[in-house]
Amino acid sequence: MSQTDTTQPGRYVTGGQEYTRDTNYIDDRITADAQGDHDADGRVLPDSERARDADGRLLWPVEAGRYRLVAARACPWANRTVISRRLLGLEDAISLGLPGPTHDARSWTFDLDPGGVDPVLGIDRLQQAFFARYPDYPRGITVPAIVDVPSGQVVTNNFPQITLDFMTEWTAFHRDGAPDLYPERLRDEIDEVNAVVFRDVNNGVYRAGFAGTQGAYDRAYDRLFARLDWLEERLATQRYLVGESISEADIRLFTTLARFDAVYNGHFKCNRNKLTEMPVLWAYARDLFQTPGFGDTIDFAQIKKHYYIVQSDINPTGIVPKGPDESGWLLPHHREELGGRPFGDGTPPAPPRPGEEVPWPGSAVGHTG
Amino acid sequence: MSQTDTTQPGRYVTGGQEYTRDTNYIDDRITADAQGDHDADGRVLPDSERARDADGRLLWPVEAGRYRLVAARACPWANRTVISRRLLGLEDAISLGLPGPTHDARSWTFDLDPGGVDPVLGIDRLQQAFFARYPDYPRGITVPAIVDVPSGQVVTNNFPQITLDFMTEWTAFHRDGAPDLYPERLRDEIDEVNAVVFRDVNNGVYRAGFAGTQGAYDRAYDRLFARLDWLEERLATQRYLVGESISEADIRLFTTLARFDAVYNGHFKCNRNKLTEMPVLWAYARDLFQTPGFGDTIDFAQIKKHYYIVQSDINPTGIVPKGPDESGWLLPHHREELGGRPFGDGTPPAPPRPGEEVPWPGSAVGHTG
Repeated sequence: MSQTDTTQPGRYVTGGQEYTRDTNYIDDRITADAQGDHDADGRVLPDSERARDADGRLLWPVEAGRYRLVAARACPWANRTVISRRLLGLEDAISLGLPGPTHDARSWTFDLDPGGVDPVLGIDRLQQAFFARYPDYPRGITVPAIVDVPSGQVVTNNFPQITLDFMTEWTAFHRDGAPDLYPERLRDEIDEVNAVVFRDVNNGVYRAGFAGTQGAYDRAYDRLFARLDWLEERLATQRYLVGESISEADIRLFTTLARFDAVYNGHFKCNRNKLTEMPVLWAYARDLFQTPGFGDTIDFAQIKKHYYIVQSDINPTGIVPKGPDESGWLLPHHREELGGRPFGDGTPPAPPRPGEEVPWPGSAVGHTG
Repeated sequence: MSQTDTTQPGRYVTGGQEYTRDTNYIDDRITADAQGDHDADGRVLPDSERARDADGRLLWPVEAGRYRLVAARACPWANRTVISRRLLGLEDAISLGLPGPTHDARSWTFDLDPGGVDPVLGIDRLQQAFFARYPDYPRGITVPAIVDVPSGQVVTNNFPQITLDFMTEWTAFHRDGAPDLYPERLRDEIDEVNAVVFRDVNNGVYRAGFAGTQGAYDRAYDRLFARLDWLEERLATQRYLVGESISEADIRLFTTLARFDAVYNGHFKCNRNKLTEMPVLWAYARDLFQTPGFGDTIDFAQIKKHYYIVQSDINPTGIVPKGPDESGWLLPHHREELGGRPFGDGTPPAPPRPGEEVPWPGSAVGHTG
């Protein structure tokens, strides 16, 4: 994600105001039983002629090779989708476009690709896929976004639904041994944990960092660390957040924890302590990092560049910190002693595809403890 | 200290440039044998009629009650003078003026005093004492500054000399049991340590924080942490930096370490690790903090407010971090096991004067380990 007022480059903080995330997304879904979204010539049907779910959301059909996931390494919300795709083995079914870490007010670009153009979508700015869908699209151009390759249109950037649909609608394309990351019997508990983790942690760090008043910052800081204390206690006796195995709840918490010391501690002033100073959460985060599908999606250099360069109203100098030392992510975590079965009845994913590898320390995952 | 381009409020970083400290100060000295600086009516003699030292610096006479030390709690360079004054027991001889932590481009003000006016000098801005001395004073209005109370003129703001002169020229007014903080036999070694600590640590954090290019920041960061590693090793086997007792070298290192996690780690991006993550240096810093005369001069709230609010080109939002947790400063340090005699043949100072106390945790010094 990255929501900018397009009229004011680099403006993330509004003085005198608390930060409120715009949670209006293109909320179409891709589902297993959706049909009839395009005619015989491949032209997308008008919205009025297409199927919708009970909430009125337009439905697109699950189809291998049709969609491209656009997900910058830097972004925690996009990171969730990349991890899910890895764990479920959806790499063959859904290709991955990777915008670079920095961008201007017109949002994410494919500046890391040859010629600055996404090789599948043929565009240089993600904006073009939003405008292909809605020529006057007025809201943030955000990742993750799923793009319909034939039409070049964004299907959805509604990130909380994207991973759930990967888990529950794309089952026909899951790899052998794919874990059940959203088991039916645990969904209520996962949803409950996700709700408080989103409010206080995932979005809480942004409420601290983008606060336009001291009071708004103070409140976000207090809620964040109260919730981290709660998590520290919860995870002291269980290896994962819900149940015995990795679930969607762990993925959502992980992508924030992975950025905590690198960015949120300094840049967002979430500095009561570093993650490394909370022994349980730090071991929990290392355990996940060292699990194939997690650390091998993390690029600390891109993460730091994104926040420290793009959010220029918080860091106008544009200097990117050299620290913190990242070697600790590979240290033993001893969380196996709590039991648990990382992939339940499933198995770990294979290493990342060529072209989808990340630098050290993420690239060392699978080679260590 | 606080040096601002007075034409550009809040400008500390110059894009494209590395930071170079202006070390041109009013470098007069106050010495034990200086005389004849003013006539019978109390008027200061013209410079041409007054004594100078071998370096051509104008000399003022040591005289109890005549001078006022202006030293903001926030400032590390001023903090040195406040610690020295405490350790040596110069409180009766030299009074203390305390500007508040924040200020505009016209520099330090006495906004904490009743009516915003220093009760002894009768001025609201330190600037007035500089202009009383030199009406067109063109450089930074900095603390620490020593002001001649009768004339209202700044005598010196040359901070490295101020503490040395407290130690060697003001001996007639030292308390009983005052330590020798600059022993003759150790001066070469103290000077040597001070030189590298100034370059890489005291000023090194500013070179990182005020860097106008990524390269200048990277170099400052590397030198800073290389020097901290060197100090970590040096202090592993000896309690103090030079000799067996506290010296000027410890005072100079301490005032930077005290600000490290509160400010330099986040605001100046000195974030390879926190001080608390370097076991030897952290224990060394706690040892000093818990020694009367050190921690009881530290006001973390003022320190954080100063950097995060005044340096608005680094932190334009003006939000002041709530963290880090400061309770660790009072934890046992076990440095006694290394031997050493904190005050040599001397004794600890008495508690701070009424009106000169600081908030917790500094106020707890003397009540703990």
